[in-house]
Amino acid sequence: MKQSIKAIAFDVFGTVVDWHGGIRAEAAALAGRHGINGDWARFANDWRAGYPVAMNRVRNGELDWTRIDGLHRIILEQVAADHGLGDLPPAELDELNRAWHRLPAWPDTVEGLSRLKRDYTITTLSNGNFSLLTDMAKHTGLPWDCIISAELFHHYKPDPETYLGCADLLGIEPQELMLAACHPEDLRAARQHGLRTAYIERPHEHGEKARWPEVEKGEFDIVATDIVDLGRQMS
Amino acid sequence: MKQSIKAIAFDVFGTVVDWHGGIRAEAAALAGRHGINGDWARFANDWRAGYPVAMNRVRNGELDWTRIDGLHRIILEQVAADHGLGDLPPAELDELNRAWHRLPAWPDTVEGLSRLKRDYTITTLSNGNFSLLTDMAKHTGLPWDCIISAELFHHYKPDPETYLGCADLLGIEPQELMLAACHPEDLRAARQHGLRTAYIERPHEHGEKARWPEVEKGEFDIVATDIVDLGRQMS
Repeated sequence: MKQSIKAIAFDVFGTVVDWHGGIRAEAAALAGRHGINGDWARFANDWRAGYPVAMNRVRNGELDWTRIDGLHRIILEQVAADHGLGDLPPAELDELNRAWHRLPAWPDTVEGLSRLKRDYTITTLSNGNFSLLTDMAKHTGLPWDCIISAELFHHYKPDPETYLGCADLLGIEPQELMLAACHPEDLRAARQHGLRTAYIERPHEHGEKARWPEVEKGEFDIVATDIVDLGRQMS
Repeated sequence: MKQSIKAIAFDVFGTVVDWHGGIRAEAAALAGRHGINGDWARFANDWRAGYPVAMNRVRNGELDWTRIDGLHRIILEQVAADHGLGDLPPAELDELNRAWHRLPAWPDTVEGLSRLKRDYTITTLSNGNFSLLTDMAKHTGLPWDCIISAELFHHYKPDPETYLGCADLLGIEPQELMLAACHPEDLRAARQHGLRTAYIERPHEHGEKARWPEVEKGEFDIVATDIVDLGRQMS
């Protein structure tokens, strides 16, 4: 199988970067400056929980195409109010919204990607917008060969346009492209459209309490404990 | 002016890589393997000369959207025949067509881009297709932050969609984006749509005999002798 793979596309939020840790830390720092107490781990999870709902409003046509930056900002209005940040100046909430552009990598990410880059084209395939992913790569030192975002297709994953559009832009067949992700439903959609799949375990995506999504044995081509492990299995 | 620039987009063929030298060398090597003599510098120029003509057929709607890979291959049919390569197996001409994916950088390119990358987001803004630019970056070691191609807009430069679309994807205003190119007409179009401009001198773009395009004094924000010089002026 390895020999037929030319490129590996990565889901980003959760798979490559620790959105939970990054958002929690930035929210805590902002709240601290204003003397506001709260549960910033829950704040991070609440903000993230609004995201599939907002994307589905785009996917079903209720909202026109809107970048994740815009969706995040809409969700933040309510979540900030719920957590006592609703009265902060809008410019400070705008800046908090940009925390998604500078999320920290997991400890294995840069080493794993650098190793995979030697043998494969490595790209993002994320619902994050193009500038968010570009800023994050620069800030966090992610060595992508290119940035591919749902924004390029005006379709969010798991719409088929994203998986097939990614292969098409790379000039390869769907079966020559592998999606690496910690979200089984993303991988299942990719597989349905002919991509190969690598499931990356990220039990702490939502915080310290481990959550293991349900995955059946043999469901994906590769199961890896992290991106370094994926690099080892793919080399 | 420097302080207001957030990203620099580069024209690629001629500005960043030496298409003339690369194509001439690959054509000469292929012809040599088949014992065919010819003028491969002229071959390179003839192939390249078909390119604006073919793009204009797309721009005026005569041809549906077609990637540069496809346009190059159409043009190659005639140019190969004119230069005695018309009877080569199609697979060998396909492989020659991919020479555009592995063009050599100018000697100053990687150093200059690496320096600019410290202070700016650096991207391609080329009529080359996305996979061509991605392959080239990997092959030639070009340290782009992201790959932006006319293919993403289904419009070729100098259509406004390319310059404005590039700024939009990067999440910045047109006046925060600088186009760096060795082609004055590309820069003039960019300027017309609000971008800042850097003219890079590449007198040997078309081969050993120097050609200096006509540029008026003060026409562009910056005139640089190469990309290292641009890095010096922009730091």
